[in-house]
Amino acid sequence: MAWTNQRNQQLVERARRVIPGGMYGHQSTAILPAAFPQFFSRAEGARLWDADGKEYIDYICAFGPNLLGYRNPAVEAAAIAQQQLGDCMTGPSEIMVDLAEKFVSLVTHADWVIFCKNGTDATTMAMTTARAHTGKRKILVATKAYHGSAPWCTPLLNGTLPEDRAHILQYEYNNPESLADAFRSADNDVAGVFASAFRHDVFEDQDLPTREYAECARALCDEFGALLIVDDVRAGFRIARDCSWSKVGVQPDLSAWGKAIANGYALSALAGSEKARAAAQSIFVTGSYWFQAIPMAAAIATLTEIENSDYLERAERTGGILRDGLARQAVSYGFNLRQTGPVQMPMILFEDDLDLRLGYCWVEEAVTRGVYLHPWHNNFVCAALTESDVKATLDVTDQAFEALKKRRATLGPVEQLKARFARLAGAVNGRIRASA
Amino acid sequence: MAWTNQRNQQLVERARRVIPGGMYGHQSTAILPAAFPQFFSRAEGARLWDADGKEYIDYICAFGPNLLGYRNPAVEAAAIAQQQLGDCMTGPSEIMVDLAEKFVSLVTHADWVIFCKNGTDATTMAMTTARAHTGKRKILVATKAYHGSAPWCTPLLNGTLPEDRAHILQYEYNNPESLADAFRSADNDVAGVFASAFRHDVFEDQDLPTREYAECARALCDEFGALLIVDDVRAGFRIARDCSWSKVGVQPDLSAWGKAIANGYALSALAGSEKARAAAQSIFVTGSYWFQAIPMAAAIATLTEIENSDYLERAERTGGILRDGLARQAVSYGFNLRQTGPVQMPMILFEDDLDLRLGYCWVEEAVTRGVYLHPWHNNFVCAALTESDVKATLDVTDQAFEALKKRRATLGPVEQLKARFARLAGAVNGRIRASA
Repeated sequence: MAWTNQRNQQLVERARRVIPGGMYGHQSTAILPAAFPQFFSRAEGARLWDADGKEYIDYICAFGPNLLGYRNPAVEAAAIAQQQLGDCMTGPSEIMVDLAEKFVSLVTHADWVIFCKNGTDATTMAMTTARAHTGKRKILVATKAYHGSAPWCTPLLNGTLPEDRAHILQYEYNNPESLADAFRSADNDVAGVFASAFRHDVFEDQDLPTREYAECARALCDEFGALLIVDDVRAGFRIARDCSWSKVGVQPDLSAWGKAIANGYALSALAGSEKARAAAQSIFVTGSYWFQAIPMAAAIATLTEIENSDYLERAERTGGILRDGLARQAVSYGFNLRQTGPVQMPMILFEDDLDLRLGYCWVEEAVTRGVYLHPWHNNFVCAALTESDVKATLDVTDQAFEALKKRRATLGPVEQLKARFARLAGAVNGRIRASA
Repeated sequence: MAWTNQRNQQLVERARRVIPGGMYGHQSTAILPAAFPQFFSRAEGARLWDADGKEYIDYICAFGPNLLGYRNPAVEAAAIAQQQLGDCMTGPSEIMVDLAEKFVSLVTHADWVIFCKNGTDATTMAMTTARAHTGKRKILVATKAYHGSAPWCTPLLNGTLPEDRAHILQYEYNNPESLADAFRSADNDVAGVFASAFRHDVFEDQDLPTREYAECARALCDEFGALLIVDDVRAGFRIARDCSWSKVGVQPDLSAWGKAIANGYALSALAGSEKARAAAQSIFVTGSYWFQAIPMAAAIATLTEIENSDYLERAERTGGILRDGLARQAVSYGFNLRQTGPVQMPMILFEDDLDLRLGYCWVEEAVTRGVYLHPWHNNFVCAALTESDVKATLDVTDQAFEALKKRRATLGPVEQLKARFARLAGAVNGRIRASA
């Protein structure tokens, strides 16, 4: 394989000296195949270029923010025009009001919105608003449905305390009985239920909500006076031009947004119904950059594209072609894929691949040929991806399946994942001592 | 007074419908004099224009981010150049490494840095890193030294639980005995001490750290194995071209940064010494936009200006002229000011003004004449402010003192602050019930 990524390697070495572990968070490639570049130089449409100048058709989309295509002309024009006026000022720009009105008009359940920066800002505010509204404490969260990286919700417990999640209770996604049990065990102390757009944790098949589960969640929240919260940070505007749960006919009280709402500019949001307005107004939340005007201008342009273009249908069409093509290819080479979740947010796992050795080999063969697919996180299809891009992708994945078939017998366990599982186990063992 | 802000009023009315309370957080003008505009249209250098087109010499600087002047040419050029390449991509740009190296080279105690978005991201990571490093739980925070707006540190308790701050202990800033007492009462369970750049809460005189306090904090942390954390989010690079505590000769283990480090582009950071690297690497933290390249490009340009220009000395000079001029004017009109904190981050309060009626009247008279000063938050001087701007400011403040003197006898209590004090009391009363 004529694969070199010399500049990337130099950058990784330099980064190790001045950044703990050389990189952190969801964009770290520490446990991906070595061929995955850590640093990039450029992005345009559905394409990325790494620090060594190699080009990729990108199915990660910055892990969600890239909805319309990198450097979408309408969004960039709006950002540049706002940049000429001002960004982070002593107060918000008047366009904050335009944006709030537009957001509320687009999202059925929303009567108001609060803008912030991180997805976790929005999910944490949802929790706090629910507690302020109800005067109750318990928050019900579904297993395998990520809600952020603050101490109350980070997937790794290092440095957190038992008190951080003393009132966080788990239930099983898409299981009305499990949710009802959680309500019962909470002894009428439930402030809110995180119902999640869909179940989309890493390393797992994805699971879309059933109408029965959604209606049950709504009914239980109403019965017990709790707030129903849809965490739409990852899926927002990728499934519907509305809250994702509009697809199953249920309106939440609160919804958390981020990632795609400004096509990559830093903006997240908590949206709510009239019922929760007073509680949202009663909590103190803020951030140095929450009122920046450039991301708000970018969001207005993004929402305008969402309203007026066929961005969603295009992603569904190209995502569908990709899914069908991959399924056919897999079978033709003697593999079976588990492709779950919406076609525009596809999780791609191999059957009979408990330790992911097949998946790791396959994405490595693809990435070295210029297609960036993820072995254990859902992928994303942006609206700039064309049918011709998908055809080029399928040419590459066909070669990747062929290579995988040849290498299959010689594949061992994935070294990078051994380390991960060891670290996860260590995190639990090293958990800070509970109070007696 | 020929003062109209009709467009602002219309925007405020519209905002009330789609944003809880019409606005939230530190940039809300809800309890400021009615003349303070809520919405702005433009900013340049040391000046702001509100939605009605009125021009202000701005002493708030977006509450800190504006260090070099709004739309500083070098910073904007760097941001625009990066915008042509890419911003929020599937991985960070290689300039992340350049920025980390530059940051570490500038801040004496820092061997590594983690970039994030909010100041609260950085302070929360500092807490988590300290707990991961020590395996201990208690965090000592100084009273009247703000550290953020997450449940563990927000100044208003609505929607939070006692568990959120179960292991947060208070001590008195600049009081070594109080800090030693807090260590003793924590029973060898102290993970970290937030020592704060200086004491800078709203409504209060500011207090710079004494060398004795700083050295005592360092010694106690070393004795008990806790990490010393300087929260430099508000003051970073406004007092020194290094961590603010370099001025009192003490190096912390961790420092939290934000606001000024990218001159208004959304970037914050946790910096740490070698000792804390492994702990920082062991926690899981991330954010959708933490790896955006535009703010990093802006930060590199900002740090370059910090290194190579006299930005700091200019702000100290103009801030000093302002402080001297205000003191003289106040006395000449029969008032005394309490001007505390660094001259470039001046808190301006009136003596004998318990309910702030003098301060409110004075800033109202100033803002309607085009000078934006804050009645109870520290102000900020940016490097774009010229001596001629200060002269124009002092012309306005002289008129404001004159008007204040005339109105003094007729001033009643400040209506907006009555509401605030009632709300604060309500927040404490309405605090969610503690577990039994």
